[in-house]
Amino acid sequence: MSYRMIGRFLGKIILIETVFMVPALVISMCNAEFGAVRAFVITIVVTLLAGGILTGITRGTKEGFRAREGLVCVGISWMVLGLFGALPFFLSGSIPNYIDALFEIVSGFTTTGASILPEVESLPYGILYWRSFSHWLGGMGVLVFLLAVTTGDERSKGFTMHLLRAESPGPKVGKLVPRMKETAEILYLMYILLTVLNIVFLLIGRMPVFDAVCTAFGTAGTGGFGVKNDSIAGYSPYIQNVCTVFMLFFGVNFSCYYMLLLRQVKNVFKDEELRTYLGIVLGSIVLIMINLRGYYSSFGEALRHVAFQVASIVTTTGFATTDFDLWPSFSKSIMLCLMLLGACAGSTGGGFKCGRALLIIKGLRKSVRQIIHPARVGVIRVNDRVTDEKVMENTNAYLAAYALMIVVSFLLISVDGFSITTNLSAVISCVNNIGPGLEAVGPTCNFSGFSMFSKLVLIMDMLAGRLEIFPILILFSRSTWKNR
Amino acid sequence: MSYRMIGRFLGKIILIETVFMVPALVISMCNAEFGAVRAFVITIVVTLLAGGILTGITRGTKEGFRAREGLVCVGISWMVLGLFGALPFFLSGSIPNYIDALFEIVSGFTTTGASILPEVESLPYGILYWRSFSHWLGGMGVLVFLLAVTTGDERSKGFTMHLLRAESPGPKVGKLVPRMKETAEILYLMYILLTVLNIVFLLIGRMPVFDAVCTAFGTAGTGGFGVKNDSIAGYSPYIQNVCTVFMLFFGVNFSCYYMLLLRQVKNVFKDEELRTYLGIVLGSIVLIMINLRGYYSSFGEALRHVAFQVASIVTTTGFATTDFDLWPSFSKSIMLCLMLLGACAGSTGGGFKCGRALLIIKGLRKSVRQIIHPARVGVIRVNDRVTDEKVMENTNAYLAAYALMIVVSFLLISVDGFSITTNLSAVISCVNNIGPGLEAVGPTCNFSGFSMFSKLVLIMDMLAGRLEIFPILILFSRSTWKNR
Repeated sequence: MSYRMIGRFLGKIILIETVFMVPALVISMCNAEFGAVRAFVITIVVTLLAGGILTGITRGTKEGFRAREGLVCVGISWMVLGLFGALPFFLSGSIPNYIDALFEIVSGFTTTGASILPEVESLPYGILYWRSFSHWLGGMGVLVFLLAVTTGDERSKGFTMHLLRAESPGPKVGKLVPRMKETAEILYLMYILLTVLNIVFLLIGRMPVFDAVCTAFGTAGTGGFGVKNDSIAGYSPYIQNVCTVFMLFFGVNFSCYYMLLLRQVKNVFKDEELRTYLGIVLGSIVLIMINLRGYYSSFGEALRHVAFQVASIVTTTGFATTDFDLWPSFSKSIMLCLMLLGACAGSTGGGFKCGRALLIIKGLRKSVRQIIHPARVGVIRVNDRVTDEKVMENTNAYLAAYALMIVVSFLLISVDGFSITTNLSAVISCVNNIGPGLEAVGPTCNFSGFSMFSKLVLIMDMLAGRLEIFPILILFSRSTWKNR
Repeated sequence: MSYRMIGRFLGKIILIETVFMVPALVISMCNAEFGAVRAFVITIVVTLLAGGILTGITRGTKEGFRAREGLVCVGISWMVLGLFGALPFFLSGSIPNYIDALFEIVSGFTTTGASILPEVESLPYGILYWRSFSHWLGGMGVLVFLLAVTTGDERSKGFTMHLLRAESPGPKVGKLVPRMKETAEILYLMYILLTVLNIVFLLIGRMPVFDAVCTAFGTAGTGGFGVKNDSIAGYSPYIQNVCTVFMLFFGVNFSCYYMLLLRQVKNVFKDEELRTYLGIVLGSIVLIMINLRGYYSSFGEALRHVAFQVASIVTTTGFATTDFDLWPSFSKSIMLCLMLLGACAGSTGGGFKCGRALLIIKGLRKSVRQIIHPARVGVIRVNDRVTDEKVMENTNAYLAAYALMIVVSFLLISVDGFSITTNLSAVISCVNNIGPGLEAVGPTCNFSGFSMFSKLVLIMDMLAGRLEIFPILILFSRSTWKNR
């Protein structure tokens, strides 16, 4: 294990985090929030020192990097981001308990949006900004950002590939162009463009600028932290619809947008995962609308709420305009399944991913066909291309890890004594980076009732969910730390 | 598809069912239960005709048999067994609705033990016997029985292998001896021996003969239908403890008993699956005992109830001496996880199976090691033997099918509007052939509240669970029915 290289890498990550805290500091200064200003200044000094020292003592390190270093870097980076990122919440007194603060910022970076705060409107603007911005940064990935802004030399080519693979969601890494650095740049440019567009559309609806920026951050990262206690429910129907559309946009694989830029419109609409995703969204809306007949006063209102909630949950954002925990059982069950499913691979959304579900179902069909015709050799095709056996193997391993993680976490947090539905939906919500669950963690409730132990379990779940399990799992494997 | 051969096979199965109905008829005659006698006579005439005609018109069929014919035979046989087996319930008026009767008998044959009857003590003895006997027959498998009693010629060797594979639970088929017919004979002999032993131990505790036989049937098949409304709660602590021990016995892979007969005691205790199984049982008992401190009046009483309930659920039997739905959340969650897990492969128990869980976890560890050391070739060892890639592939496909089936069924039955915990535990209970679930389908409740549609879904779940999904799944594949 190349510890010096990992140290150097962590140093850079911490410095980037420092830079990103400056806007929050400025906002707090402009609003004369002295407690928050003090908290940000201390945090910035601490991170600057930590990052500076780490990069300083590891200057000139030139060691070989392999897959495991890449994965270890990703896992530890995200933990370190959380540990430092929680400081402003804690030091400003907004969240008096450090574990709670850690829960909140990890929920932010992992774009979960699960909160331990019973109300947010009394928080300083700087803190609210930092909370929402963590979604934006976590959505596309801070390591991808590092990749985009630093000049990668040839030596670390394999390494950057591992980084991108570890941080990009989905069964396959989507290289848009041959060079990784350019891929990262293109991804971030599209991400910024879409975010700006989102802000503009919100501003047209006369949303206050601060609200619009924070809401767009929460939407873009498919996070879900809002700046109002009732999430998006208090805004106009127009704003709610803008959110619905943009949430769905950010749940689409970004390579689709790249194809659009290259005017390969046909290929976009042929994409099997996109079609599955849109089909599921539409199907869910229709089924829930039928199930909710007479629940809302008009068809239009029902459609607006249902579309919003479905978009919010399938993309794993977690914004709300109505309390779906009050919906009938069938609708709630659909929502629970959407939580498990998640959006497209290569988007900012979490969850198991439509693409993976598609692979699993195709794999199953292949198995059945293999049983019927044992002599025939079967292959799995996605978008008319044969899927590599390796990808299928990884997808199976992922399903196993995913199922196991949900079962074990469910068991661990049930010690607190909440209901089975609460515990199960809390775990599903955190593992899939959604935010709200059902019952005691429903859309109008929060996670503050859990014990510190359960919160730590859920923090690990959120990290594992965002990084797709393996970067966190290998941290617990003995052979990772053996130097051979 | 060789329809004539399938027809011939089904004919035989129906005739076997006819024979097994005779004891129930005799019991009803001895107890002067006229309605039941009439029902059994009509059913026996109908099955005799159906079986006789089918075997008659397909006499002398000599077609080649392949894997798909074997699987299709298994799937259809079990459906046909249920369709005819439900007749006595329906015709005697014990269960006035045919779908309910079908639910009850499929629950019997699949050794689930989920009932739609609010009370059973008013049922005729013949009907109660038939209900419990269905567990015993379903436990080891009616096709295995057919294999044991008929003279298999060499031509159908591959076919019998497929049958045994399809009906025996677990990732690998456990051939005890090279010849399939002998394996089937040995399995049934051990099964009968253990059942008789169980009856003897129950009789020593002064249980009435009828109760002892029916309870032993329910225990041996890991079914769970009892002859009392309060299941086993009303019997003496001695009888309850006998049940606990025998339930655990029937959850063990029968090849372990065969090894014991061959005096290979060491190999038995080296068996990784057996150790996992016993470890999980012990661990669960300890954890629940800690969680339940002060819930029962004495340590002894608590231990008796906890051991009974854990044994009943992990072996997927479903007997009860206390209502675990009233236990605290952590204990209930452990029970829910035990429901998902199930007993050992090659036992009469249902569920995912300890052996499969072991394989999945070992596969995951291999995947993690593969990530850390991409160049090294990893293998999975169970009992010091390298596991075939094919077995691992099947296990993964099984996990995918299992997870998908639970999600889809959960969604379908949620239309009825029951709570999420009720629906989820009902599906888990049926898919894993357990019996009771939680809340509205808890140990003191029953499945009668579900709609006919949901009952049909749960019937398919029970069949799929007992036959390990694929024999049912391929019935829905188009390529099964294409003749090429």
